Amino acid sequence: MTEPLTGRLQAPARAWFETLRDRICAAFEALERENRPPDGDAAPPAGRFERRPWTREGGGGGVMALMRGRVFEKAGVNVSTVWGAFSPEFASRIPGAEADPRFWASGISLVAHPRNPHVPPVHMNTRHIITAKAWFGGGADLNPIRPDDEDTALFHRELKAACDRHDPQWHARFKAWADEYFWLPHRGEHRGVGGIFYDYLEDDLDQAFAFTRDLGETFLGLYPRLVGRHMDRPWTADDRAFQSVRRGRYVEFNLLYDRGTQFGLRTGGNPEAILMSLPPEAAWP
Amino acid sequence: MTEPLTGRLQAPARAWFETLRDRICAAFEALERENRPPDGDAAPPAGRFERRPWTREGGGGGVMALMRGRVFEKAGVNVSTVWGAFSPEFASRIPGAEADPRFWASGISLVAHPRNPHVPPVHMNTRHIITAKAWFGGGADLNPIRPDDEDTALFHRELKAACDRHDPQWHARFKAWADEYFWLPHRGEHRGVGGIFYDYLEDDLDQAFAFTRDLGETFLGLYPRLVGRHMDRPWTADDRAFQSVRRGRYVEFNLLYDRGTQFGLRTGGNPEAILMSLPPEAAWP
Repeated sequence: MTEPLTGRLQAPARAWFETLRDRICAAFEALERENRPPDGDAAPPAGRFERRPWTREGGGGGVMALMRGRVFEKAGVNVSTVWGAFSPEFASRIPGAEADPRFWASGISLVAHPRNPHVPPVHMNTRHIITAKAWFGGGADLNPIRPDDEDTALFHRELKAACDRHDPQWHARFKAWADEYFWLPHRGEHRGVGGIFYDYLEDDLDQAFAFTRDLGETFLGLYPRLVGRHMDRPWTADDRAFQSVRRGRYVEFNLLYDRGTQFGLRTGGNPEAILMSLPPEAAWP
Repeated sequence: MTEPLTGRLQAPARAWFETLRDRICAAFEALERENRPPDGDAAPPAGRFERRPWTREGGGGGVMALMRGRVFEKAGVNVSTVWGAFSPEFASRIPGAEADPRFWASGISLVAHPRNPHVPPVHMNTRHIITAKAWFGGGADLNPIRPDDEDTALFHRELKAACDRHDPQWHARFKAWADEYFWLPHRGEHRGVGGIFYDYLEDDLDQAFAFTRDLGETFLGLYPRLVGRHMDRPWTADDRAFQSVRRGRYVEFNLLYDRGTQFGLRTGGNPEAILMSLPPEAAWP
């Protein structure tokens, strides 16, 4: 047995991720209840999140919350708190784990794949990690089927405001990081219209945690507005077919390049929780 | 400019792969023309292969042949002949390329995703590679949605007979190699019911080429029989839904683990030709 690491912000961070999950699930379920999709009786019933707890061999576990509904064809929110020791191979690549391979990690991860092709899919995750060091990381990015200039501007504006409330230099840095990260080299195209990506925020942990909370609050205030802007718009069969192709690109990114996916699958993570991010369906016609 | 490598079996191997492609395409198109799917008028029209040539920056190119039909929802046959020099990173991992990074490679690669969930998808590819060494490699494996014992037995029996005609020790070795290769560690399950996988067959190149041709002939005589056994069986919506889930596993394998896919995408290969192997659609419900 490895003795778990401890840290001052461990309990508050974990509590925050779980609270944020509850509030996001409630907001998404409200959208399900209050919305009448444009395809009327052909639409599935309003969805509710189903929660499935899981445990991790080696320490900790989490809860997958998954909803299949009429606004959200598939939305997953996973909260996990895990601990243990990295394999030597990984330890050498993780800050603070070179000498002591123990780690503790807690975080929230969310992916929403709306049914309406006009409503943009989104990804958001934030985490607190403790090794011999301690830091926060995360990000949020928008993945519209067909980008909408107003959505894109609003999304970046709100994320910039969140960053600016904590450090005026962060947004430019974190936006560039997202642009670099969400890139499919074999297609020569980005995944989505970007957002922010940050990691190893450790200099001032209280500030890093405050920013991480602010990003969660910002997401909660922002994404339902983007859903609301488009959820009543009717779509065509062609729109759905194109949505499937774009979802295929999302699959390509997550399986070929996403570090969290690769990391999770290769370290014995829960495949159901890790692959919850994949769209309900995708096409390579 | 890198001077291309030459080899005694270069021209005959390339000619064989192209001939085999023509015969396979003709056989698949005949199945399209002569079959009346059980869903009658709801079935799409009989498909024909469309060929698209492509060239590779750095040397050579190929022809993608793609068919969307009523027996084969998506079938792709790619023949390519490429040459150039491996990057130092790759050269160190390829036999014979340590001192001289030049390579020449020709091969055929085929993936068939039938529409009827009772008809098993299949993958087959063979290649001739020249560096300071020269060898043949390839394989064939069956990927039924729901395995059928008779199909599985027939598939393995015919592949064993093909191996036995050249070396009585090969089948056990090549079958075990396929079982090891087509494995999804994160799911703890195999991709499909296996087949054979071989590589670096170099001791007797004439024998290796004869075996490679025999595998192509065997495939051509065998797979259409498996299609014929099931193509008239009606299916349910549940069968189709399950087919989509199993196709998702196929996507997971190809993007997460398949060496050819990783190799091709990271060495600037043609993404359309490489990802031609992906199913027409897949689901992660």
